[in-house]
Amino acid sequence: MESYPAKSDPIVLEDEEIFEAHVAGKLSVQLRSPLDTQRALSIAYTPGVAQVSRAIAADHTLADRYTWANRLVAVVSDGSAVLGLGDIGPAAALPVMEGKSALFKAFADLDSIPIVLGTKDPDEIVETLVRLRPTFGAVNLEDIAAPRCFEIERRLIDALDCPVMHDDQHGTAIVVLAALIGATKVLGRDMQSLRMVISGVGAAGVACANILLSVGVSHITVVDSQGILHPGREGLTPVKADLARRTNPDGLTGGMVEALKGADAFLGVSAGVVPEELIASMAPDGIVFALSNPDPEVHPVVAARHAAVVATGRSDFPNQINNVLAFPGVFRGALDAGARKITEKMKVAAAEAIVSAVADDLAPDRIVPSPLDPRVAHAVAAAVAAAADPAE
Amino acid sequence: MESYPAKSDPIVLEDEEIFEAHVAGKLSVQLRSPLDTQRALSIAYTPGVAQVSRAIAADHTLADRYTWANRLVAVVSDGSAVLGLGDIGPAAALPVMEGKSALFKAFADLDSIPIVLGTKDPDEIVETLVRLRPTFGAVNLEDIAAPRCFEIERRLIDALDCPVMHDDQHGTAIVVLAALIGATKVLGRDMQSLRMVISGVGAAGVACANILLSVGVSHITVVDSQGILHPGREGLTPVKADLARRTNPDGLTGGMVEALKGADAFLGVSAGVVPEELIASMAPDGIVFALSNPDPEVHPVVAARHAAVVATGRSDFPNQINNVLAFPGVFRGALDAGARKITEKMKVAAAEAIVSAVADDLAPDRIVPSPLDPRVAHAVAAAVAAAADPAE
Repeated sequence: MESYPAKSDPIVLEDEEIFEAHVAGKLSVQLRSPLDTQRALSIAYTPGVAQVSRAIAADHTLADRYTWANRLVAVVSDGSAVLGLGDIGPAAALPVMEGKSALFKAFADLDSIPIVLGTKDPDEIVETLVRLRPTFGAVNLEDIAAPRCFEIERRLIDALDCPVMHDDQHGTAIVVLAALIGATKVLGRDMQSLRMVISGVGAAGVACANILLSVGVSHITVVDSQGILHPGREGLTPVKADLARRTNPDGLTGGMVEALKGADAFLGVSAGVVPEELIASMAPDGIVFALSNPDPEVHPVVAARHAAVVATGRSDFPNQINNVLAFPGVFRGALDAGARKITEKMKVAAAEAIVSAVADDLAPDRIVPSPLDPRVAHAVAAAVAAAADPAE
Repeated sequence: MESYPAKSDPIVLEDEEIFEAHVAGKLSVQLRSPLDTQRALSIAYTPGVAQVSRAIAADHTLADRYTWANRLVAVVSDGSAVLGLGDIGPAAALPVMEGKSALFKAFADLDSIPIVLGTKDPDEIVETLVRLRPTFGAVNLEDIAAPRCFEIERRLIDALDCPVMHDDQHGTAIVVLAALIGATKVLGRDMQSLRMVISGVGAAGVACANILLSVGVSHITVVDSQGILHPGREGLTPVKADLARRTNPDGLTGGMVEALKGADAFLGVSAGVVPEELIASMAPDGIVFALSNPDPEVHPVVAARHAAVVATGRSDFPNQINNVLAFPGVFRGALDAGARKITEKMKVAAAEAIVSAVADDLAPDRIVPSPLDPRVAHAVAAAVAAAADPAE
């Protein structure tokens, strides 16, 4: 890229402004109709409500129509992997979950409630949500540490007859896929033949690898803090061993130096640092997604000296990869369609819808829409609903 | 009472109107500030929210100030004793819990979320709410069947460091006490010396007996479907055996005939039927609270032929005994005071505040305020907060 100006001045936030905006929390529960007359009270509560309860008791499917549960997203966290802060616990995670609920409302008009759990035990988390099942219509898992997040999500998908998605995994993966589609379109390159390096094997890294493999990006090398994943490496967790078997077709060993040499695309979801000379060792016309926040693995201005397309998680540079492009529309679409699962097909449809929202405006500094673009969630919801398979 | 006109025509509700008002549920979650600029997004979500999470991680008490949890009431039910409908399950209970949340908002400006549980096991209910503890600031238990409700409430009060109250027990007991204070004031009678009969030993009956005993109403006879509770009766549950030891000072045996003969006050919380001749057998100037809904144990017009003060749960007759007079203000007061428990002292203070709200307007057909009187919850909250003991 010849020049790579910051999109805007960085937003400088004073602590005072942040804390002031959080006093008493960011959410409130409101009545959909006022309760200010005896008649309204008699309808919403006794004796009128008994008619509704009686009807649902006779036919449980009526709860979908006459309660809020069917459209309610539970935003669930144990606070074990919150933003870049790590295992700070459920109370400290709550402001993030409130923010997530606020985003669901603002972008997809979905009601949601934050649920923060005083346990990190997968058995207990699954059991708790199974018991809460009649309360909500979908589960957005959030900020749960790897590798527990993989087991918890898998078991919840099996146990609950409603959409369940760990956003740190699949929300990120969807937006990364969208960005990669956008970048390869802009560059006129074939996505499937890219030589791709993924740095980080946490929730996001694993999900990104999986969605990219599922759409035919077969040449992926995955690197963690110990180096390149390959089947011969000792001490791999089951998740990493599985990924090692399905990636690294050239059988590379070593570290980031060996992985990045001649690579076409770099995806950083690691909180690590990648020196400029390694970016320089990539093939020409490369793609760099340095998503670690707030400090990208490589500064976008540095990356842009060598790569053709650069994206980060930051709002003050072009091409912000932000999960808010995906999750509101994904849940809205799944709920609109009455889907019981969020399938790979629905995730890929979401990614394609995100790119479609930029359509003819695609450019090296515009491979994804702005996170504030209100059209995106609606486009994603429609695409996800259309891709939903009621049988699944 | 010489005449006892209905206060208003009964409210006739068509099913269509009721169901229409319930489409998509009665609640919504709203943002307290809009999220329509990059700056607002950066404050409410990443990166700004990290400052708040970091602060709470360092000092957990800050969650009270910077999240909604501290003011959030969980309205919790297993759907095992819903209104007069019985064990209809959690999904069918949800419209009632949404109604309850709506009342919390409308009368005490408290946010609350309905939580309906797919388990009736006391161990599992307690365990689930302990795990959810960081999510909310208080628990309103609702429509849980006796005798499980007693154990569940007691164990939750022990396990959670926040206000917990089973409204079917204590909300009813508070309003009954308020009504009894009002009735005896109007009649110029001494409450403590009343000969009182309670029909029903469910959640409400037990709690009413307990609060009345606690304020010195010592002459109470309790009757269930098998007759008068007395220590010699076989097959009593632990709760009934305990009540039998603490009531019935005359050692009465038999049934409602023996209990009501010469009694000063009748409290029906039973869904049973009391024939007119038994009401006629009470002492002169009596008090009849026939609270079964929608069909009082004795019709108020019939009761008024013999009693000096009559109350029911119905909105179309004077003296409606409705829990909404108590619970919004009780929880609001407990949360305002930062109380960890809702003590007997706070409950009695709530009852006195309810009566105070009618003050000089007290009359035989006005022993409690209207459930729609917006002053009541504020008066109750202030009284409950003043009666709270921060050490408890």
